[in-house]
Amino acid sequence: MNIYGGQVNRLIEELSGLPGIGGKSAQRLAFYIINMPEDRVQALSDSIINAKKHIKYCKTCYTITDNEECPVCSSKSRDHNTIMVVETPRELAAYERTGKYEGVYHVLHGVINPSAGIGPQDIKLKELMVRLQKEDVKELIIATNSSVEGEATAMYISKMVKPAGIKVTRIASGVPVGGDLECIDEVTLLRALEGRIDL
Amino acid sequence: MNIYGGQVNRLIEELSGLPGIGGKSAQRLAFYIINMPEDRVQALSDSIINAKKHIKYCKTCYTITDNEECPVCSSKSRDHNTIMVVETPRELAAYERTGKYEGVYHVLHGVINPSAGIGPQDIKLKELMVRLQKEDVKELIIATNSSVEGEATAMYISKMVKPAGIKVTRIASGVPVGGDLECIDEVTLLRALEGRIDL
Repeated sequence: MNIYGGQVNRLIEELSGLPGIGGKSAQRLAFYIINMPEDRVQALSDSIINAKKHIKYCKTCYTITDNEECPVCSSKSRDHNTIMVVETPRELAAYERTGKYEGVYHVLHGVINPSAGIGPQDIKLKELMVRLQKEDVKELIIATNSSVEGEATAMYISKMVKPAGIKVTRIASGVPVGGDLECIDEVTLLRALEGRIDL
Repeated sequence: MNIYGGQVNRLIEELSGLPGIGGKSAQRLAFYIINMPEDRVQALSDSIINAKKHIKYCKTCYTITDNEECPVCSSKSRDHNTIMVVETPRELAAYERTGKYEGVYHVLHGVINPSAGIGPQDIKLKELMVRLQKEDVKELIIATNSSVEGEATAMYISKMVKPAGIKVTRIASGVPVGGDLECIDEVTLLRALEGRIDL
């Protein structure tokens, strides 16, 4: 498709390289961008460069932040004896949106996934062990996703940490609130049954 | 959500301003971009600026192109006596992909839409009239979308052009090839019935 000319084709190609954006969406986006006012185009382009250039990781929990330490880690009102282990900053943000979690976090930036060549040394596990040795941690809540890799990583961390006498917990899996039982997969249904609580 | 820091939030905001990209997609895209290698981030950012900066419209048909005149208009092998009128360069590209249309195009860059404040003077209609006066056009094929505005624009052009004795046609509307009759809206079904042909 050389019909739009080189520069527009380049933009379409670059956009189709992003996740979840197919050929048609890329075309639609490219035409939208071309028709945006000049200053908005500049702002979009700048925000891409700046986000990449100024990215910093919290020196304590390794989430993405603007400063040396993220707002959660530097807050005095948070419970620094409880650490929730998450895969990425997006899960941290999801728990922050609940507004109910009072502890701090540790961001792994991935999970152990041998088939993709990601071993324990490729995620922030060593950094977690250092924190556990330095800080007075009472509970480690493992909130990796309930995928195969997420579960395996949870098991790995649990085995690694338990000998140190730290309480290790795992967030519950079960039927989502508001979920229609009929539409939920069998593994989740069985998990919900196994994890049933007294009323 | 100040959790990711200013620059990442800026990027998320800019991305959510694009059509079809909601808050969650914008977050996913932003994190993907942050994790891309530096040179790919630069290439993406540059392609946005360059597409906007170097945009040119074909002096004849007003499609987007790199040169003074687009490849279709400057081709000797195309039939310059047949002009297909389309709304945007994307419809032009769609017909070019069929590889079967041998005429040339005229891109309106929109349709008449009074409720959005777009009148005949806001799209490339005057330019179409100039072409029809200058060039020896045998047939004008109107290929605006079959939306209310597309149909109204087709009628407007037809009334405007017919007095000049030029043959004006409209692409057929009907049941899409491979479409399941059951799933097709009634207006389309009626169109397909009205437009039936002898076998």
